[in-house]
Amino acid sequence: MANFLSIFTMRNLFVLSLALNLSLIMRVFYEGEKHGPHELSAQKADSRLEKEAHATQRTLVSLSSSGQDDGEKLINLDHGDPTMYESYWQQMGEKTTVVIPGWQSMSYFSDVKNPCWFLEPEFAKQVVRLHNLVGNAVTEGRQIVVGTGSSQLFLAALYALAPKDASEPISVVSAAPFYSSYPSMTDYLKSGLYKWAGDALSFDKEGPYIELVTSPNNPDGFVRHPMVNRTGGILVHDLAYYWPQYTPISSAADHDLTLFTVSKATGHAGTRIGWALVKDPEVAKKMVKFIELSTIGVSRDSQLRAARILEVMTNSSQNPGRAESGESFFKISYHLMAERWQLLREAVNRSRFFSLPDFQQGFCQFLNQVSQPQPAFAWLKCEDDGVEDCESLLRGHKILTRGGRSFGVGPKYVRVSMLDRDHNFNLFLKRLALIQT
Amino acid sequence: MANFLSIFTMRNLFVLSLALNLSLIMRVFYEGEKHGPHELSAQKADSRLEKEAHATQRTLVSLSSSGQDDGEKLINLDHGDPTMYESYWQQMGEKTTVVIPGWQSMSYFSDVKNPCWFLEPEFAKQVVRLHNLVGNAVTEGRQIVVGTGSSQLFLAALYALAPKDASEPISVVSAAPFYSSYPSMTDYLKSGLYKWAGDALSFDKEGPYIELVTSPNNPDGFVRHPMVNRTGGILVHDLAYYWPQYTPISSAADHDLTLFTVSKATGHAGTRIGWALVKDPEVAKKMVKFIELSTIGVSRDSQLRAARILEVMTNSSQNPGRAESGESFFKISYHLMAERWQLLREAVNRSRFFSLPDFQQGFCQFLNQVSQPQPAFAWLKCEDDGVEDCESLLRGHKILTRGGRSFGVGPKYVRVSMLDRDHNFNLFLKRLALIQT
Repeated sequence: MANFLSIFTMRNLFVLSLALNLSLIMRVFYEGEKHGPHELSAQKADSRLEKEAHATQRTLVSLSSSGQDDGEKLINLDHGDPTMYESYWQQMGEKTTVVIPGWQSMSYFSDVKNPCWFLEPEFAKQVVRLHNLVGNAVTEGRQIVVGTGSSQLFLAALYALAPKDASEPISVVSAAPFYSSYPSMTDYLKSGLYKWAGDALSFDKEGPYIELVTSPNNPDGFVRHPMVNRTGGILVHDLAYYWPQYTPISSAADHDLTLFTVSKATGHAGTRIGWALVKDPEVAKKMVKFIELSTIGVSRDSQLRAARILEVMTNSSQNPGRAESGESFFKISYHLMAERWQLLREAVNRSRFFSLPDFQQGFCQFLNQVSQPQPAFAWLKCEDDGVEDCESLLRGHKILTRGGRSFGVGPKYVRVSMLDRDHNFNLFLKRLALIQT
Repeated sequence: MANFLSIFTMRNLFVLSLALNLSLIMRVFYEGEKHGPHELSAQKADSRLEKEAHATQRTLVSLSSSGQDDGEKLINLDHGDPTMYESYWQQMGEKTTVVIPGWQSMSYFSDVKNPCWFLEPEFAKQVVRLHNLVGNAVTEGRQIVVGTGSSQLFLAALYALAPKDASEPISVVSAAPFYSSYPSMTDYLKSGLYKWAGDALSFDKEGPYIELVTSPNNPDGFVRHPMVNRTGGILVHDLAYYWPQYTPISSAADHDLTLFTVSKATGHAGTRIGWALVKDPEVAKKMVKFIELSTIGVSRDSQLRAARILEVMTNSSQNPGRAESGESFFKISYHLMAERWQLLREAVNRSRFFSLPDFQQGFCQFLNQVSQPQPAFAWLKCEDDGVEDCESLLRGHKILTRGGRSFGVGPKYVRVSMLDRDHNFNLFLKRLALIQT
């Protein structure tokens, strides 16, 4: 709690009362703005203080407004749909609006001189700029490969890394609990190139293998390193959640093949854009070939939109609080996640039913302070001996989550999205409290 | 030639001289507009006559401006990059401009009530409206599945139609010459579900099979029907080119599974949006599953853009010439294709080196007139006995095409894109003429 409070400055507290008074008016604005971007500039709040207080304000508004629980609505926290971030981008107003005329970006080709010919130069530029600012990945000496979300890049990586002339498919492993889609994504086409081989910790087959290292890990949020107890593995690092709002940025990742996605970085899941940083040009070339064969490139419209969003995000952290750049995305998001984790931990600590992972705090090079891991998912465990299936228990209370079995572990665990809109997150807390009493 | 001229009215001829005078000014405008959509409304030409003369004007401007052939530039007509259409959409000005605010379409979900949960309702609505207008496909009783281009939908269809528990992969066939990417798209992952089995005409293996019916066909432009000489085949109809500018619309296609793509209909290849019309809800469900596993849905930004473009395209044909709807997309495009084919046939007829397919004219229900097939690709044959490899011959003249071997036939054939920008198309004609003399 002390650590949580330390991230709020006196300034935050000073503007709190103002923010509370403004909150209702702002809510009305947001509802009205949803379909009228052009009206936004006239309406948008231009007070810097007002924006800076946003993180603090939201908690209190949420707690009061979430009083109405009709008890019937199913809360879907099964997917990691990052709608929590909508609020921030509403506040940023027209800065991130893209305008695409009908004759723009019609050709298949974004950049014929780039080995990744469907990569928009502006998107590549903003990716490099963002990594340089945040310090979470080395971009020098890397080919950027853009994909239709990082799912497509994961499949492209398997295709690129699997030997083409092997007598049997290469094994693909990841330490349990692993991302629930890895097994089905690897096996759905019954490929002769690669095959899911389960938990990296129990993997002992001879020969080459591909190990997926997700860090921080989905579902449990822990920092991960390769787990197979021998050398010779080909590594794919999925760093979708290696951003300051979720985990301390300890150093710039410097791996052979690293995946990122816009959806978890900025919240724009519907845009379907991810990127890979690839050291070996031959591997990058094969990934490009995969994307050619599966979708003939990646939507140029979405890349242009993503480029704009990354640009604004970087600007906001470089010059926080200036009228032209807005409030720092990462600081606001860090505060929001800190709040939510604080509230969830309080609720869980009051009960004998559930537990949450304990994380080591660490120094975040980007925030320049000690920070706590506060993952995009809560990896909740039912501690009660009488409950075998935590997913069913929660479903009975109209909370949809994803059970441990999907992640290669037991049904005592569930994964819960921490990125839903305020209202749903608060309903989740309320219903969790009911189970405990 | 008589048929070609008959599509021009006296009105076209009347405005021709005006159009020619304006053309240079308009070109200067377009160059200036490329990066400044907001300036467009003030600058855009509002004369209806001027627009109506566009098709005629373009030929003459092109013929004069294409006089400069530096002789060194490689013309890439290997891909079917539909940049020819940029001009039309420039003329349509702001009508097709999309504005996407930063907080819009952030969720993964477009429509949770639709089995295809990532389908934007507005896109689905415009697809139905367009088919109803053109009369090229039955949409009633079909599930629309949106894809990242029709390539993804082709793969989704294979996944959905292949039996999951068969002892060997199902055979996938298409009559030669077939689309050059079918074999590699089918086999690149060495799937245990499906396998490329070559030319449908020589296919005689027992058991189930999937036949790809591309009509009009890529590369040769002919109308196609299933070719395997027995029943029991599962059919996938690829109707990417079944639009009035390419072929007479004889009736509304009424198949089990039909693929379309925005890139060939409107020219927006960079947007990566295709759609399938699927009769069996279970097949549609499996296609949705495929897209979930490969890319977790389809870019919502691109669907919104595509919806706007289809809407404007339909409006333009419903109310041609009205200021608010613009000149008919299909009529303008039909004229353009007619011109290009006319010029190409003239060039080919003058030579002893090449030949082109002869097509049967037919009645087009949409244009309400007899019309000629005028495919998006020219399927050129080297008739000279001394030339074995037509692709190499043309490459020697700095014309990149795709040789017959890629399409399952001999190297005497090449496929040439007819959809490039005016300048390149005219360079192509000039260089072709040089080979003949």
